[in-house]
Amino acid sequence: MDKDRLDPWGTSAIKDYSRLQSEFGIEPLAPLVPRFKKPSPHMRRGIDFGQRDLARIVEAVERNKPYAVMSGIKPTGDFHLGTKMTADDMVYFQSLSKKGTVFYAIADVEAYADNGLSFEQTAKTAVRNVADILALGLDPDRAVVYFQSEELKVMRLGIVFSRGVTNNMLRAIYGERQIGLYMAALFQAGDILMPQLPELGGPKPVLVPVGADQDPHIRLARDLAARYHDDFGFVPPSSIYHKLERGLTGSGKMSKREPASGFTLEEAPAVVSKKVLASFTGGRATIEEQRRLGGQPDICPVFDLYNFHFAPDNEYATRVYQECAGGIRMCGECKQEAATLVKEFLVQHRKKRTALMKDAEELLVKSRRYLISAGK
Amino acid sequence: MDKDRLDPWGTSAIKDYSRLQSEFGIEPLAPLVPRFKKPSPHMRRGIDFGQRDLARIVEAVERNKPYAVMSGIKPTGDFHLGTKMTADDMVYFQSLSKKGTVFYAIADVEAYADNGLSFEQTAKTAVRNVADILALGLDPDRAVVYFQSEELKVMRLGIVFSRGVTNNMLRAIYGERQIGLYMAALFQAGDILMPQLPELGGPKPVLVPVGADQDPHIRLARDLAARYHDDFGFVPPSSIYHKLERGLTGSGKMSKREPASGFTLEEAPAVVSKKVLASFTGGRATIEEQRRLGGQPDICPVFDLYNFHFAPDNEYATRVYQECAGGIRMCGECKQEAATLVKEFLVQHRKKRTALMKDAEELLVKSRRYLISAGK
Repeated sequence: MDKDRLDPWGTSAIKDYSRLQSEFGIEPLAPLVPRFKKPSPHMRRGIDFGQRDLARIVEAVERNKPYAVMSGIKPTGDFHLGTKMTADDMVYFQSLSKKGTVFYAIADVEAYADNGLSFEQTAKTAVRNVADILALGLDPDRAVVYFQSEELKVMRLGIVFSRGVTNNMLRAIYGERQIGLYMAALFQAGDILMPQLPELGGPKPVLVPVGADQDPHIRLARDLAARYHDDFGFVPPSSIYHKLERGLTGSGKMSKREPASGFTLEEAPAVVSKKVLASFTGGRATIEEQRRLGGQPDICPVFDLYNFHFAPDNEYATRVYQECAGGIRMCGECKQEAATLVKEFLVQHRKKRTALMKDAEELLVKSRRYLISAGK
Repeated sequence: MDKDRLDPWGTSAIKDYSRLQSEFGIEPLAPLVPRFKKPSPHMRRGIDFGQRDLARIVEAVERNKPYAVMSGIKPTGDFHLGTKMTADDMVYFQSLSKKGTVFYAIADVEAYADNGLSFEQTAKTAVRNVADILALGLDPDRAVVYFQSEELKVMRLGIVFSRGVTNNMLRAIYGERQIGLYMAALFQAGDILMPQLPELGGPKPVLVPVGADQDPHIRLARDLAARYHDDFGFVPPSSIYHKLERGLTGSGKMSKREPASGFTLEEAPAVVSKKVLASFTGGRATIEEQRRLGGQPDICPVFDLYNFHFAPDNEYATRVYQECAGGIRMCGECKQEAATLVKEFLVQHRKKRTALMKDAEELLVKSRRYLISAGK
């Protein structure tokens, strides 16, 4: 992160989340939490920390009005912990009301352009990715999953936006970038705003759950929503921000681009165990010191594993934190315990996912049919 | 045109075509003309003046190998003299061999983004535009006409190219531009290179007939063909350049964007006559002077009308030139004569075009079916 810019394509960690509020205008989440009947684990554990216009979503839920939850995935491989986190948020926000629809974009054009993956390859990966999100609890009856490469509505919006945006606006948000990244950002704004097109029910609140480093994309989409308000009636999209998981290697954020920093939901349990057991921690130099000073869960990627994903409930996560900070919990056992939880989760998840492969295919077919007929 | 750059989006005229050869590497056309059995009127009248790799097309014709001719139109209104000129070139190059296929892109996404025209509006205009080109002689059996908004292959190529291009490369070719214009240029490169995709028969020579000011688009497409040669086997596209018609108002080039500078093939004959009769000319201050010094056909938009379009044959165009330069032909009669020729052409053309509306619709349907099945 450079001095005055967030980098959605970088790998560095964010050190001070409060700065995001003063510098970028991300609003705190806390004041809104009481309006949720059952706040999500991410909200309760301080993982979700900020928002923009989340009140619009809360109001839609309270008044039983339609809203959408939007996110996307680059189908370059299996679900990673980062994708899981966003998926968990989507599932949660979909569950708040029968009027909530999830839009899930499969960025296969990007996977092709950046990673050289053919559309056939990514189509296969996408089915697995969709099965993953179903296994995490997505309701397929209120979900629309689409391939960017097949969604002309998104491409058209991207092109329209490209004419309305100034280079200075893009530079202010993203810094000086290669044009392909600007283009990807504009199409992504198309993804975010598509649910508000007349053929998809018209203007409505749309929530985009993202990692804090993705805020530039939100700002662009919000700028464009304002700029094209007269043409499309766009409501500025809302966002909720989660903290970034620390990489297991101890350097920067956990990232798909650095496989050693995390793991996918499909990696062999033995490999995952190894990664967890070898993880960097917030532990002290000696056991003696750790007993005396306590560990440092706030900088520990192993604590993040508990807190972001694998602690069975909030009390469990809190207990781990307190035992660590209190010098009772030592890193060796803690990693063992984490590895066991991870392994149990993975085994269960895979079972569910395998059983849901057919549902995933059906959801893709159904979504496509819906979007094509909506375009007419 | 600034000192070292051609502006495909500008309205200024080009004063010195020979400079294009020394500065931009456009090759002269003359040495290749003898290889055409029946050179086109544009070639014989010095309107087409330059080329890049046109020899590839000549060779394809000579060896009876497949080649394509590619151009596009922004469907913002009726055929203008500039669109007619490119269409004439397409028809000519298609006619050289049974192995020549025309690809014609209808840039409806741009018409939407730049001119706010809905896809319904442009779809109607496009049918009329296609009927125009059929009336000018296009063989529909070897033509593929498509809407950019429906052609995912083009969009995908545009996105792929956006990742492979550097900002410096774009700036070197186009100067510092608004990102939307860069994006349009990249999608246009997609149009130019699409005929070489495996599903459309694979690598082959593709000719793009253009006005001299459009050379930046050709350079970009050729750069990208080289850059993606290993992935797609692209043959660098060929081009042939025609001079730009002078605007009737005497300022700059004839341009769709300045309606007074020219006319469409659908304007009322009375209006067109008026424009021709009111045209700026290369005439002298007085009749006496014109008799003594001769007129200046080389800077006269009325002579351009004869030479580019409406002189029934080459001898006719030459005679007008010589009479004018020799001080025999006066501007008043010359404009009257031009107006009559234009009117006759328009009446004939409209008759043909009206009769071809159904064929135009059929060509669009047939093309779409072909491109969809080719994508599978």
